Amino acid sequence: MSWNTFGRVLRFTTWGESHGPALGAVVDGCPPGLALDESAIQPFLDARRPGTSKFTTQRKEPDQVRILSGTFEGKTTGTPISLMIENVDQRSKAYSEVAKAYRPGHADYAYDAKYGLRDYRGGGRSSARETAARVAAGAVARLVIPEVTITAYVSEIGGDAIDREAFDAAQIAQNPFFCPDAWAAKRWEKLVDDARLAGSSLGAVVECVAEGVAAGWGAPIYAKLDADLASAMMGINAVKGVEIGEGMAAARLRGEENADPMRPGAQGAPEFLANHAGGVAGGISTGQPVVVRVAFKPTSSILIAQPTVTREGEATDLATKGRHDPCVGIRGTPVVAAMMALVLADHKLLHRAQCG
Amino acid sequence: MSWNTFGRVLRFTTWGESHGPALGAVVDGCPPGLALDESAIQPFLDARRPGTSKFTTQRKEPDQVRILSGTFEGKTTGTPISLMIENVDQRSKAYSEVAKAYRPGHADYAYDAKYGLRDYRGGGRSSARETAARVAAGAVARLVIPEVTITAYVSEIGGDAIDREAFDAAQIAQNPFFCPDAWAAKRWEKLVDDARLAGSSLGAVVECVAEGVAAGWGAPIYAKLDADLASAMMGINAVKGVEIGEGMAAARLRGEENADPMRPGAQGAPEFLANHAGGVAGGISTGQPVVVRVAFKPTSSILIAQPTVTREGEATDLATKGRHDPCVGIRGTPVVAAMMALVLADHKLLHRAQCG
Amino acid sequence: MSWNTFGRVLRFTTWGESHGPALGAVVDGCPPGLALDESAIQPFLDARRPGTSKFTTQRKEPDQVRILSGTFEGKTTGTPISLMIENVDQRSKAYSEVAKAYRPGHADYAYDAKYGLRDYRGGGRSSARETAARVAAGAVARLVIPEVTITAYVSEIGGDAIDREAFDAAQIAQNPFFCPDAWAAKRWEKLVDDARLAGSSLGAVVECVAEGVAAGWGAPIYAKLDADLASAMMGINAVKGVEIGEGMAAARLRGEENADPMRPGAQGAPEFLANHAGGVAGGISTGQPVVVRVAFKPTSSILIAQPTVTREGEATDLATKGRHDPCVGIRGTPVVAAMMALVLADHKLLHRAQCG
Amino acid sequence: MSWNTFGRVLRFTTWGESHGPALGAVVDGCPPGLALDESAIQPFLDARRPGTSKFTTQRKEPDQVRILSGTFEGKTTGTPISLMIENVDQRSKAYSEVAKAYRPGHADYAYDAKYGLRDYRGGGRSSARETAARVAAGAVARLVIPEVTITAYVSEIGGDAIDREAFDAAQIAQNPFFCPDAWAAKRWEKLVDDARLAGSSLGAVVECVAEGVAAGWGAPIYAKLDADLASAMMGINAVKGVEIGEGMAAARLRGEENADPMRPGAQGAPEFLANHAGGVAGGISTGQPVVVRVAFKPTSSILIAQPTVTREGEATDLATKGRHDPCVGIRGTPVVAAMMALVLADHKLLHRAQCG
Repeated sequence: MSWNTFGRVLRFTTWGESHGPALGAVVDGCPPGLALDESAIQPFLDARRPGTSKFTTQRKEPDQVRILSGTFEGKTTGTPISLMIENVDQRSKAYSEVAKAYRPGHADYAYDAKYGLRDYRGGGRSSARETAARVAAGAVARLVIPEVTITAYVSEIGGDAIDREAFDAAQIAQNPFFCPDAWAAKRWEKLVDDARLAGSSLGAVVECVAEGVAAGWGAPIYAKLDADLASAMMGINAVKGVEIGEGMAAARLRGEENADPMRPGAQGAPEFLANHAGGVAGGISTGQPVVVRVAFKPTSSILIAQPTVTREGEATDLATKGRHDPCVGIRGTPVVAAMMALVLADHKLLHRAQCG
Repeated sequence: MSWNTFGRVLRFTTWGESHGPALGAVVDGCPPGLALDESAIQPFLDARRPGTSKFTTQRKEPDQVRILSGTFEGKTTGTPISLMIENVDQRSKAYSEVAKAYRPGHADYAYDAKYGLRDYRGGGRSSARETAARVAAGAVARLVIPEVTITAYVSEIGGDAIDREAFDAAQIAQNPFFCPDAWAAKRWEKLVDDARLAGSSLGAVVECVAEGVAAGWGAPIYAKLDADLASAMMGINAVKGVEIGEGMAAARLRGEENADPMRPGAQGAPEFLANHAGGVAGGISTGQPVVVRVAFKPTSSILIAQPTVTREGEATDLATKGRHDPCVGIRGTPVVAAMMALVLADHKLLHRAQCG
Repeated sequence: MSWNTFGRVLRFTTWGESHGPALGAVVDGCPPGLALDESAIQPFLDARRPGTSKFTTQRKEPDQVRILSGTFEGKTTGTPISLMIENVDQRSKAYSEVAKAYRPGHADYAYDAKYGLRDYRGGGRSSARETAARVAAGAVARLVIPEVTITAYVSEIGGDAIDREAFDAAQIAQNPFFCPDAWAAKRWEKLVDDARLAGSSLGAVVECVAEGVAAGWGAPIYAKLDADLASAMMGINAVKGVEIGEGMAAARLRGEENADPMRPGAQGAPEFLANHAGGVAGGISTGQPVVVRVAFKPTSSILIAQPTVTREGEATDLATKGRHDPCVGIRGTPVVAAMMALVLADHKLLHRAQCG
Repeated sequence: MSWNTFGRVLRFTTWGESHGPALGAVVDGCPPGLALDESAIQPFLDARRPGTSKFTTQRKEPDQVRILSGTFEGKTTGTPISLMIENVDQRSKAYSEVAKAYRPGHADYAYDAKYGLRDYRGGGRSSARETAARVAAGAVARLVIPEVTITAYVSEIGGDAIDREAFDAAQIAQNPFFCPDAWAAKRWEKLVDDARLAGSSLGAVVECVAEGVAAGWGAPIYAKLDADLASAMMGINAVKGVEIGEGMAAARLRGEENADPMRPGAQGAPEFLANHAGGVAGGISTGQPVVVRVAFKPTSSILIAQPTVTREGEATDLATKGRHDPCVGIRGTPVVAAMMALVLADHKLLHRAQCG
């Protein structure tokens, strides 16, 4: 199947391939009357844009978004918002080898097994270029939840983690790694560059924290807030693990260590003394920060040749030339933030539907 | 919101509370002509049933399933299959304290914040008793994918992991922990019992492997097989992390370490030399075993009192008496397997819809 | 496919066959805090109940509804509401002929062509008994829209229409035909009884008017209020036509005849000088009464033998014995009202989701 | 709400306003490997295109479609197909009056009541220009059902019906009315032109017949084939009534008149001796032609002034100048055919999902 729509009330549908003329998103269900023009979206695309440092792919894409519908006189009208980004830097010539053989770690074989044919240019629909459309849609979602602050950052690259004590949110925009720890960012420069020069690649962990989420969002049992976040994050290219709050580490805690005790708070709502839960209990937000952690595998496209097979089933070796991110998790960071915004905005509206 | 339906083509809807008269599931979209009566479902419910050892809750529920619709002369008719399980052992009297104060780590406060009222008896709808309905639905899903073998087991309790070298699938049904390592099972007896006697609880990791999944299942971009699995698993009570293949560890690997190289295989399909991907690439199954790992937090209901607040916002301390699992991950194992079956069966049908 | 769920935010799923042990509905997405017990549902079921006059089927079903989940202390909790109605008067013995041959006008052949097998007892899932579940669900929906008054009535039987001048809503509950015109009701007694005695059946037109619907409900373009009503009504057993406002007659009007001119109204909202539109423009409610008209075909089960074929493809003639409504439109009236309630309640919540 | 997606497996999402830069559709779930380029779509758009005769609006739109994604080397890849049509002839200047006052019979007031603001230029999203996107999507759907022949035609304008005896399918493309009766087409020339010159408008009835539909398509109970068709058709701009088979007339038939008797057929399947049902029984196709009839109201935009109110609630009179279809049902004909194709293609895939 092909299922390119996400969300329940605030829904978006993306389309487009890596080397087609354009890609885009249609955002449906957005409340009316919100101020929206391209300038509300472009900064988020710029943060994800390739080619801004040597630590990301050198493909040059301006990623200029154009709003084709859904606004009038600078405001959303409540009708579908069509967003389009033209592809500019398509070099299809590099793909003759990929047309013939399956890149290990990529979706090439899976797409062929499923559909019987595939657009091999840059991975076609399976390319991470699709995430530009998510980022654009996410910028619209943010308008729906102005009370929420979303912070996403890389907390670990290639096993080298930030120092939590040195966390400084202001640093995130100051280095090419979305790193909140200035020293770690320094170390990562060499780490990532070495991997790049070796023709290899590195994995990363991205964390995302949403503050200002009201208690009560989430739709148990099968559209729990954490389940929808898990789906949103696991669906990002190269993601292999998703954690909420303590995540996998919760399996090693005892009940009393993992409890989030409460005390009477200032505003009537309880004050939590811990947030092991990551802001979600029973699939519903508790009013605490919503904390998600996501593992990106190392970029599968590497210059180190790997054994593989051709479409005809013959053995060959393949090194993926071309312009690739040495650590795809870096540019995944704005995508994680966008998916957080999209899930939260959808759930805010879902909650309003049932509970007013 | 309330969203109690899961799936896209093979869909199921669950209903019921911990202390209501019954709970159930309606399974819709099941292919016709499959042999189905209660005996095809009951063994799976029996595996999840409480009260079978001192390592699980002592609530006595026979969990007898009854098929109310959707079959005729022992076969599915293609119409909705209604499954009902009556609650037998409801002791509502134990819940007066819980009515007044929020149990830390539970969904009590979140439900109240959302709905303004809650059925506090045994957690109401947020009780893990709901998962009995999933297990029943999962048994139906298994009929749709007879070619797939699903194996679920506990790989770690309270930080004590199995020895992968000692893995023996035949052991899983031989101990009360769904443990494939006989020695680990021995150790866990004491580990879990100590926690129980201390009024504490332990977390666990559950792994689930599905073999026999054809290449090509999955619906990119927003119903990827791994994304749907992530949603399915994260939505199980007490789950805080979900991994596919290497999972979080993928973030620490280099590209060449994480590659799944291919060689020509016997049947035309490639043979993979590794399965770091856990059987999914680009959201589509590759034909390798689908591997999911799930972290269960320690049961929140513990006898060790925790600071909390009452509904009126006053400080109090609460120890959760009653009959609770000292390690909820154990009985979560058949639930993980059921959700795996439900996701795979749905995707098999989805794939058939588009690709024939 | 099998698709037994209706609605987008307020959703219900029905299950059950004519001659199974029970049938039911699971209503999901209902707002919390609404007063609900069986007594809020039973009167609507009683209005639809068979066997109350000689003008309906003589099958004796008490149609007692039982609420199995979703309420606590007499109020909805926001979790799924499971409603069950047991089948009492199942006489399967009458169906041996039907097992072998297809009843003309019925779904027998279509079900067999689709599923390869069918529950032939009373039509199985295709029986109009399923509509009892809709009526029960509709009673819950009414709680969501207390400001709306829904009036449904039969306006025509066998081509004999009511006199619009003689319309008296108080009459509807006073005769076995849901007829608002006392004289027409008198005429219909003989009309329907003659058809019954002749072993024949009659068609009917049912109208349904919803007053008090706020302007602004409806979800253009593909969940327009009128489109959802059309789907809801056309899906009722035996319905072959659906009209909104002028309906088919609009095709014969000129633009100036069909206009609904406006004048300033008392409450700020415009006052409409006509309602040709039936309360819906552009798929959105206008604040005027929502008017739907539905054509029921004559009951297909008649005692007059018809040519047909057996499952083996041999020619035969079949007269449908058993206990049938001589005019299925009569008991369809509460079903039409229920579907109106379900669509409106869903759209009220959908509108609130997007527009607050 | 805003809900701009239609379908369950084969889904399409439309976007765009009458006077925005473009409009389009994203078609998702299309099977892979189907031959598709713009030339497979353009003829259907040309049939709907405005300005081709004096009997339609004089707005000049080339309606050139562009495929932006979802194909590779001339074939569908199974990924979303993005279709875009640029708006060329936007004359926004004519809309100052409409900005201030509500056009009777239009969605102006309803949109304002719902969203609090509206794009008044040409009706914005409520304009029938949106149906160009449906026609483009419908052309893709036709590729999924090559075995089905869809014929749509106008059977009545302003109360003047075709002569069924004179039906000649070859005529449909020979006159500007999609009329299968050459004499009726002649009469309609004067009829429609007179209405146009009088500043008035006329309603119409459109019929659509799909031949070659296999028995077994349809998803009871809440995605019945006829219910989905009803939704699809009622959602077309200006449609007020939908009939399947005998439609409203079924209410006036007796059971024996409405029966569709069967006799053994040549190919094993029964041969039906009549088709009162319009090819659908129990919501499932019977293998007979699927017959739908749709009533279009007269165009609401007329030059004859009507009483209305301004946004500020003051009385005024409004004649809708601009370029309008004197009979919107004419150009609605290709839209009806497109919606038929979209519903049937979706149900073909849905059926395959469940029943293989």
